[in-house]
Amino acid sequence: MSHKAFRYEQVVHKLEETIIGLGLQPGDKLPSVRRVKDELKVSLTTVNQAYAILEAKGAVISRPGSGYYINSFNKNPLARSAAKNLVPLPEIVEVSSMAAAMIKNTVKHSVINFSSLAPINEYLPIIKLNKAMQASAKEEKNIFQYSFLEGHPRLQKQIALQSFEWKKSIKQEEILITNGSTEAIGLCLDVLTKPGDIVAVESPTYAGLLQCLESKGLKALAISMDPITGLNLDELETALATNKVAACLFMPVCQNPYGCSMSEESKIKLVNMLGEKGIPMIEDDTLGELNFAKSRPLPAKAYDSYNNVLLCSSFSKSLVPGFRIGWVAGARFHAEIEKLKFSANISTNGLLQDTIGRFLESGNYHAHIKKLREFAQIQIIKYRNTIQEYFPDTVKISCPKGGYSLWIELPQNLNALVLQREALKYGIGFCPGQIFSASDRYKNCMRINCCPLWSNKIADALKMLGKLVHALSDGN
Amino acid sequence: MSHKAFRYEQVVHKLEETIIGLGLQPGDKLPSVRRVKDELKVSLTTVNQAYAILEAKGAVISRPGSGYYINSFNKNPLARSAAKNLVPLPEIVEVSSMAAAMIKNTVKHSVINFSSLAPINEYLPIIKLNKAMQASAKEEKNIFQYSFLEGHPRLQKQIALQSFEWKKSIKQEEILITNGSTEAIGLCLDVLTKPGDIVAVESPTYAGLLQCLESKGLKALAISMDPITGLNLDELETALATNKVAACLFMPVCQNPYGCSMSEESKIKLVNMLGEKGIPMIEDDTLGELNFAKSRPLPAKAYDSYNNVLLCSSFSKSLVPGFRIGWVAGARFHAEIEKLKFSANISTNGLLQDTIGRFLESGNYHAHIKKLREFAQIQIIKYRNTIQEYFPDTVKISCPKGGYSLWIELPQNLNALVLQREALKYGIGFCPGQIFSASDRYKNCMRINCCPLWSNKIADALKMLGKLVHALSDGN
Repeated sequence: MSHKAFRYEQVVHKLEETIIGLGLQPGDKLPSVRRVKDELKVSLTTVNQAYAILEAKGAVISRPGSGYYINSFNKNPLARSAAKNLVPLPEIVEVSSMAAAMIKNTVKHSVINFSSLAPINEYLPIIKLNKAMQASAKEEKNIFQYSFLEGHPRLQKQIALQSFEWKKSIKQEEILITNGSTEAIGLCLDVLTKPGDIVAVESPTYAGLLQCLESKGLKALAISMDPITGLNLDELETALATNKVAACLFMPVCQNPYGCSMSEESKIKLVNMLGEKGIPMIEDDTLGELNFAKSRPLPAKAYDSYNNVLLCSSFSKSLVPGFRIGWVAGARFHAEIEKLKFSANISTNGLLQDTIGRFLESGNYHAHIKKLREFAQIQIIKYRNTIQEYFPDTVKISCPKGGYSLWIELPQNLNALVLQREALKYGIGFCPGQIFSASDRYKNCMRINCCPLWSNKIADALKMLGKLVHALSDGN
Repeated sequence: MSHKAFRYEQVVHKLEETIIGLGLQPGDKLPSVRRVKDELKVSLTTVNQAYAILEAKGAVISRPGSGYYINSFNKNPLARSAAKNLVPLPEIVEVSSMAAAMIKNTVKHSVINFSSLAPINEYLPIIKLNKAMQASAKEEKNIFQYSFLEGHPRLQKQIALQSFEWKKSIKQEEILITNGSTEAIGLCLDVLTKPGDIVAVESPTYAGLLQCLESKGLKALAISMDPITGLNLDELETALATNKVAACLFMPVCQNPYGCSMSEESKIKLVNMLGEKGIPMIEDDTLGELNFAKSRPLPAKAYDSYNNVLLCSSFSKSLVPGFRIGWVAGARFHAEIEKLKFSANISTNGLLQDTIGRFLESGNYHAHIKKLREFAQIQIIKYRNTIQEYFPDTVKISCPKGGYSLWIELPQNLNALVLQREALKYGIGFCPGQIFSASDRYKNCMRINCCPLWSNKIADALKMLGKLVHALSDGN
């Protein structure tokens, strides 16, 4: 650590002590930059940097011209709905037409698109990826041929290495490379289910998963989620006792849209419960790397003593969306999955696999993902504070522990589809709650993805959304 | 045209006249190089070049130390089996385990692999593709994002341009880019069929198509093929009258494995017959560019007045196998196909699409494909002559008009699986006839793909295969 960085950290630490020592509450003002400078005998720049770090951590918020305040990040938190304790029933899924039309519309008409879920170019290691790609094209003549049916060994190895310290680690040959995690999940479903079967999913869950179920004629059994602790395991157990479930499809870490993660104990309980019952679990870990904690929570697969968890993930949210490179470790179903992948499209292109493999080998991934996590967290904080400022006070907002999404519960009588239509007139796009369940459960909800880089334009767009929410709530 | 090239062409023309004038037959010796040189008063180099061109065209064959002979390319031609005039019945497809095991085995144990169907690196424009790729990565920031749901417009446009002169051309927006043509065909089947449905296919057809049917629980209705004129239209008509066929899946141009193409009249008849009946036709045109004729025959889609032909193709056999870039023009089913593609894996990566798009834009494609066609034809001729020399005289060999494959009918009592097992002991791999139908119809057949670059090693491998065929035929 450089001398300078050490000094910032010391100042940050002092400031954190001050916050605790003075018993400051959300909204309270912090000592001025100048006062801290004098008290700690450090330069103005150092204090400014320290405050910037605290702001990035979400502890404080700056109000230009006024100073720093304790962040109200946990104000208006989303809580679990009290009314959700019904036993879930399997539902036919029909969201895809709406979701597809919505996405086309949003892409076409929105200037500011809060529905896209992808890290922006400014935070991708594009130069390093391009270098790796050039090296690959030059050195690896096999990439021009059909060479890697199961995946490029370089990439398989790097993915396997990430699981090195898990209780149940994954071997290189247990990994199949796919065209993104969506393909991985689809292949798992093809192996585990037939049309008409029931698949347990989280509620809310993201539209892509529901579209996938719909395209395969599968029924969704929606298990409710706690916005903080994740999947309701008691409800799952009851639901499994009364339904013949062919597979489960969950996101234990950095759930989309809630951004919550299950505790290690809950994941172990979940994996053992399903393992004992012999119900396979597809784990979507696509956002797992985007957890804001210093060390990322392990996927449930890490505890899979039953060889029953099919882990699906990708580099689309963590490294480069456009390359469309994902993977699956299919446990006891792996050979069947490989066969289906071969029938579906033979293999995934070798070049982009080798490119990502080389980037991972270079050792730059760790620094990149750290930077990306910090970026995501800062974005989430800035968006959340602004939404809280401009939306009605009755609105509930999630407090995500990872990912890029905020989930907002609007006033009960507000229809998110109406809001969406109005917002698009101002060039603002987002995902209405309707597409996050098979049964229109989240009519008054919306998901805001905090991917577009923070700027005054973003603040203005959120302000406009708040204005529309106010108008539509009052009008009802 | 340069002066030099013109002189070669003149000499080639003279030699062709000589062949016709003297009434030379396959196996007859041609005038010596020296004699032609003296008679036409051109240099020795020019005559040698002229003979090389004739050899490439398949008209003559050189025997080192002995001179040039009229090619026996059409000796032992494959004819349509007389016994095949039964009305076809739908068959359950179960080839995938055998095919998958076979491919793994072949890749693992074969030193010389006659089962892979892909142009070799020496004939790919790798340097130009790499340049296009670097330009793409540098100039097109969108390729790192989820940007091209239906495909990269640059590539869509170039593909559409290829159909510019067709009777029924394809517009840019009617093209969806896929992960190879296998994915394209799979998506079409998903839209057109449900498990248990009947799909009419060619017999023989390649294992990949049958595996695809099997993975979707579809039944195959095998329509017999003439090795020269292609699909038996009368048989098709009878079969359609007695079976409820959900879709047809044909390769009218450069069929795999026969390498034959239907006449323009037959294609029009086929397209109209299916159009009138409202039975959609999936056209696999993957090898269409590899036709040896100067101008390639049009795909059946070019005559599709009914908007009923779903054209699937790719760049895997014509430009670069490892990029896994294909496409589909889905006619009246296109919107449904796009929706399914989105559910399956969102989109195909933009970088490799843009790379191919740039290569096509550069105008280098035409020269490349001309070179590749010539290469394929020369390979086919060399392989065919050698097989004919070393295999028993009773063997029939196809006379392909395009593609990379030779289809060989071995003596009736010889089991190709036994031959395959024996050949693998010598490191020689090929596809046995069994995997080209759903009903073990081609037990005594084999497909040799003439992709490995011609060399003494290849000649030795074919000689060894011939020896094994002799031994196994005699042993029976």
